[in-house]
Amino acid sequence: MTDGPQIETSPGAITRVPGFQAAGVACGLKESGQPDLALVVGDRPATAAAMFTTNAFRAAPVLYDIALLSRRRGSYARAVVVNAGNANACTGEQGVHDAEQMARLTESALNLPPDSVFVMSTGVIGRPMPMAKVETGIRAAAEALSPTGGADAARAIMTTDLVPKEAFAQIQTGGVTISVGGMAKGSGMIHPSLAPAAPRATMLSVVVTDAAVSADALNAALKRAVAASFNRITVDGDTSTNDTVLLLASGRAGNPLIGLDSKDYETFEAALTDVCTSLAKQIVRDGEGATRLVEILVRGAVNAAEAEQAAKTVATSPLVKTAIFGADPNWGRVLAAIGRSGVRVDPARVDLWLGDVQLVAGGEPLAFDVKAARSALKAPEVRFTADLGLGPGQATVWTCDLSYKYVEINAEYHT
Amino acid sequence: MTDGPQIETSPGAITRVPGFQAAGVACGLKESGQPDLALVVGDRPATAAAMFTTNAFRAAPVLYDIALLSRRRGSYARAVVVNAGNANACTGEQGVHDAEQMARLTESALNLPPDSVFVMSTGVIGRPMPMAKVETGIRAAAEALSPTGGADAARAIMTTDLVPKEAFAQIQTGGVTISVGGMAKGSGMIHPSLAPAAPRATMLSVVVTDAAVSADALNAALKRAVAASFNRITVDGDTSTNDTVLLLASGRAGNPLIGLDSKDYETFEAALTDVCTSLAKQIVRDGEGATRLVEILVRGAVNAAEAEQAAKTVATSPLVKTAIFGADPNWGRVLAAIGRSGVRVDPARVDLWLGDVQLVAGGEPLAFDVKAARSALKAPEVRFTADLGLGPGQATVWTCDLSYKYVEINAEYHT
Repeated sequence: MTDGPQIETSPGAITRVPGFQAAGVACGLKESGQPDLALVVGDRPATAAAMFTTNAFRAAPVLYDIALLSRRRGSYARAVVVNAGNANACTGEQGVHDAEQMARLTESALNLPPDSVFVMSTGVIGRPMPMAKVETGIRAAAEALSPTGGADAARAIMTTDLVPKEAFAQIQTGGVTISVGGMAKGSGMIHPSLAPAAPRATMLSVVVTDAAVSADALNAALKRAVAASFNRITVDGDTSTNDTVLLLASGRAGNPLIGLDSKDYETFEAALTDVCTSLAKQIVRDGEGATRLVEILVRGAVNAAEAEQAAKTVATSPLVKTAIFGADPNWGRVLAAIGRSGVRVDPARVDLWLGDVQLVAGGEPLAFDVKAARSALKAPEVRFTADLGLGPGQATVWTCDLSYKYVEINAEYHT
Repeated sequence: MTDGPQIETSPGAITRVPGFQAAGVACGLKESGQPDLALVVGDRPATAAAMFTTNAFRAAPVLYDIALLSRRRGSYARAVVVNAGNANACTGEQGVHDAEQMARLTESALNLPPDSVFVMSTGVIGRPMPMAKVETGIRAAAEALSPTGGADAARAIMTTDLVPKEAFAQIQTGGVTISVGGMAKGSGMIHPSLAPAAPRATMLSVVVTDAAVSADALNAALKRAVAASFNRITVDGDTSTNDTVLLLASGRAGNPLIGLDSKDYETFEAALTDVCTSLAKQIVRDGEGATRLVEILVRGAVNAAEAEQAAKTVATSPLVKTAIFGADPNWGRVLAAIGRSGVRVDPARVDLWLGDVQLVAGGEPLAFDVKAARSALKAPEVRFTADLGLGPGQATVWTCDLSYKYVEINAEYHT
């Protein structure tokens, strides 16, 4: 985590950014009758940057957004329409048509020019999008748009999420206050592997800012922020067909344009990273069935990529995750996961800690206070630190435990 | 599965091979008091071949066996000692010494020459081996050796297994009957990735035969048999520190020596593959918490390696495995797993079947009989077939579903 501004997670983050309105309405896509369609709309054209899943089965809205990004340049983005309840994934040609139609309906309802709206969907895979309901929802959301509608929007994009995810930060640049506000959803099928114009599971996030930022600086900042946040979380190792992070910068704050070489670039990137990291950790904390947030820090790897690979292998190990759920200091499972991760390891150099309790030194087990270890595992936040003792590579990954509830949610979530 | 001899899974497979005796006794390594130490002993020196986990944290007995294999040539192997309850993994220098001591104690108890005994261990990681108990167990097992002790040995190597795994086959070669008998254990930490002299989870298997086979033919046959059997199963994706498959060929049958160029080589390899495949599928069927055996067949991949990679990604997906437990025909999760597997995929060419029910054709969802699909998912054996439509690559992988019981077993298995 960078040393940035204070992050606020109170409701309505998106619409605390001046110039942005939002709404969340119910249009019948969720059988529960809960809100399932959100709009986020800016008061002027914004510069856009986005990252998408690397899953080969990219959902139709992902394909639509990638095409939109490639045919537009400069400031053109005015709104995002997001639905939950249907992912519009594996829906063939009809799905592609429906995603485009969602953009057209939104542009029409908001009286916006063509090619100014991004589309995101999450929910069941392989079902045709019920476009009549979607159309009703878009009209209702356009009517409901409000400068305090951020919390409604954050709630409408939830699927198996128990709580909405929001984060907000402000920074000063050039004597001007800049706001960055984001919302995200995601609880299962969470193992984002986002790349510029490439898609995966369903993690969706919309981040807006009133900063004036050049397109290349915006893309660079998003790429680095995502690498340190959304791409460092996993709930179940399953990367979705729909994952999307969209960042809109409206320029309304009137700051001197932030380019890659601006002195304010790093401040902006740090604030964006903090907002994304807060949202990413909120997703893991609300992972399907999660009872603990788990931080895996691997250091001393040959390089950062190997550190991340080892940490992700630990973070996706069902044996590690069930042991944490059971508050069992079964550290052998952590080492076994590192050992199978494919990274360079010298067993005789490996140290391991659970919180502040050292379990292994130089590959040899230490006598440790089992009660203290169990207590550390019962805390709401659990941290394992492995030092491979080989080099400067370091990475932190966040995950959650694996509980009965995870099985219940996913065995009883019927298509 | 090759067209081989009929496989029998009745008890006592190991000792149905003429010349082999076995025993299984309790020496207190398992808190439950269940049998936890097995011996398998041949009546003459056998040629040995073995494959071990690729986990970087190789357990001490794995390191011992690798060293033994590298310092001995020809026919020297007389026995295997296997204990359950303690994996002797991540136990440092003391563990290496203890594994060697297990071999020495066995040689002494059986009056065998040095360097004639292999060692295998499974159980908790990171605990020193209670050598006094082990010594008592080895002496008791040596006393209990019996030409009908195979079933006792198969039971003594179990950990979270609910049932023993045994397989037996006979073939005719050069007018002589050759027997191949094997036992295996494994239920969790099952994702073998075995390589010659390289180790992973705990899957242990001992296969014996009275065939006369040259060392190079024995190694080649084991490598191919393991590639098509143990290396094609997964329970939880976690590869152990102790996985070992050991094959002993005594030559007692008196057949003309089977070399790589013998006309009988393929018959022998097929019988060995069938025995290993039977044992591997028995492991998955008894996977921790499993209620179904699941077969994932990927064909039409660019090559066989990509087919295996795609099938293994599906087979380790928690979302796919929980959907099968819930008998939910949520095929989107299968495609999403293929899509994130990293293999080459053209979504518009993908077909998918559940049993005989086609769900997807050319990437487009088909209307299908949901009742028939649910029935197929409730059968004890479930089969998904994906055809990527790109090339000749094909692979079958076996896994099981992910149930509440899996979480219970692993959250409540305390170290």
